[in-house]
Amino acid sequence: MSEPTLDIIAIGNAIVDVIAQADENFIASEGLEKGAMQLLFTTEDAEALYAKMGPGVEASGGSAANTVAGIGALGGSTGFIGQVADDELGKVFKHDITALGVKFDTPMRDGDPATARCLILVTPDGERTMNTFLGAAQHLHVSDLDSDLIESAAILYLEGYLWDPEDPRVAMEKAIDIAHNAGRRVAFTLSDGFCVDRHRGDFLRLIEEGRIDILFANEDEIKSLHETDDFDAAVAATAAKTPLLVVTRSEKGAIAVQDGERTSVAAEPIDQIVDATGAGDQFAAGFLVGQTEGRSIQDSLVMGAVCAAEVIQHYGPRPEHDMKALIKARLG
Amino acid sequence: MSEPTLDIIAIGNAIVDVIAQADENFIASEGLEKGAMQLLFTTEDAEALYAKMGPGVEASGGSAANTVAGIGALGGSTGFIGQVADDELGKVFKHDITALGVKFDTPMRDGDPATARCLILVTPDGERTMNTFLGAAQHLHVSDLDSDLIESAAILYLEGYLWDPEDPRVAMEKAIDIAHNAGRRVAFTLSDGFCVDRHRGDFLRLIEEGRIDILFANEDEIKSLHETDDFDAAVAATAAKTPLLVVTRSEKGAIAVQDGERTSVAAEPIDQIVDATGAGDQFAAGFLVGQTEGRSIQDSLVMGAVCAAEVIQHYGPRPEHDMKALIKARLG
Repeated sequence: MSEPTLDIIAIGNAIVDVIAQADENFIASEGLEKGAMQLLFTTEDAEALYAKMGPGVEASGGSAANTVAGIGALGGSTGFIGQVADDELGKVFKHDITALGVKFDTPMRDGDPATARCLILVTPDGERTMNTFLGAAQHLHVSDLDSDLIESAAILYLEGYLWDPEDPRVAMEKAIDIAHNAGRRVAFTLSDGFCVDRHRGDFLRLIEEGRIDILFANEDEIKSLHETDDFDAAVAATAAKTPLLVVTRSEKGAIAVQDGERTSVAAEPIDQIVDATGAGDQFAAGFLVGQTEGRSIQDSLVMGAVCAAEVIQHYGPRPEHDMKALIKARLG
Repeated sequence: MSEPTLDIIAIGNAIVDVIAQADENFIASEGLEKGAMQLLFTTEDAEALYAKMGPGVEASGGSAANTVAGIGALGGSTGFIGQVADDELGKVFKHDITALGVKFDTPMRDGDPATARCLILVTPDGERTMNTFLGAAQHLHVSDLDSDLIESAAILYLEGYLWDPEDPRVAMEKAIDIAHNAGRRVAFTLSDGFCVDRHRGDFLRLIEEGRIDILFANEDEIKSLHETDDFDAAVAATAAKTPLLVVTRSEKGAIAVQDGERTSVAAEPIDQIVDATGAGDQFAAGFLVGQTEGRSIQDSLVMGAVCAAEVIQHYGPRPEHDMKALIKARLG
């Protein structure tokens, strides 16, 4: 088997974020689940919520796309597969991700629907409530996969959110086969507790079948996966069937379990949470680069924690500081 | 003559900003004039520069539009006239300005060109170098003016940048007539030293003819207007023909000259300049609201300085803090 020429290839929703401040009353009066992601199924739903929101700032987003942006900032080589429409926001997405040095060749899609957008409401406590219109992103088809690109990467990283629409689900199953047949590792993020609710059966099956080598989750997600409130039981049940499990715990830090061995790190100190958007995405970026650099589990977790701490101290889901310097200062 | 029902109506470029970090080398290698605004005349020019830029953040901008956004944040009632295309960025512009409570009824324009955008390169020192593709904004036609809206406002505020394209120039001359016939005051910003270079004759004529009641300028612009390096001479020459002249001087504060009387204020203290974008726009917002609230020239200048200090301490050209509270804390 040939050596990988790319560190990480990710498949995810190609989304532009629309980030606006909102107060608690607005979240409540709109009947939104604070801190979660809900889907806006129609263009009308998306436009109705947008019309009620305050002024926004647009920035490329998408969970796995944020992760590859973070990987690029850390010096990792990376690519992205995801579907945008041939419209202005699609051009914005493509420009931003390629400007970061990420390989992105998925052809733009003509006609409706428009490029996906996520209406993100940031409350004064820094929590984000996300409302996603999947648009073109749900039309990523198995025929859009670049097998050579997937085979070239040491790790294939998949976004749980992309399990919602049908075409990308089929594409991701196929991508797992391509990666495993090439001897690569497959990483997967559970994305969101409600997302786990929608796809628990499939996610458990993927784990059961040994199709996931590295699983990322937060506390909510891992508990939702096993429909339990017992965190340790949920971790034990998942770790038994996952070669490497990584669980982020917000201010309590993060843990990893590999071959039955549990490693914990504390959260990195921060001054103030400005916007929690991207915390999990950037944790994954740091951890994955740690792994492709051959670092220990402990140091990979610290890299994740440093990246998460950076991104929650400013608006927006992608790093703004010199991440290589931050990691060097922390780990040498 | 009826009492005004609106504080300020502005006419300006309806622009979405694309803000990216850039280093000094990039500015130099692209042959850009650091700190100035240059026009990108063709779609190709705009796309070529965009392709070379780093990842961006999109946010509604436009000089006069930023000013009305600031006026709204201060509690002033305001409207905006400007041309967007019927495309995604046009919808973003319209959403953001109306979400701020600004009256904006100019119909969207079908077909090419697209909504205007300004590619803003922010260097590590916080200076911004602007590259504007005027797109649809240059097609604001005199027939798009809403006379009732202009007559309803105590002050008509005009953006010098909009003097570049021909149609809006004609529209602004007409708007001045409408405002003056209704007994309203006309405010005008010189916008940029290079813009003054391009339109010195027209700007001097407007002043000479008494068509401007309140003139905003910075040091560069007022010196450019009279083609002199002597700041005091330039101020004296302009003030002699302008009922109220306001000149911003960055860290040296600002001055106003009304009926031969000069008032100065210091700049407000700041921690750090993050992004100077919008400093002049927000100064104008603060000063104009001071005027419509019936405050003294001194206090109006302080209001301008508070607004400028707020906006340069974060990314983006519009206020993000509770401006009414900041003014109350400063002036009571």
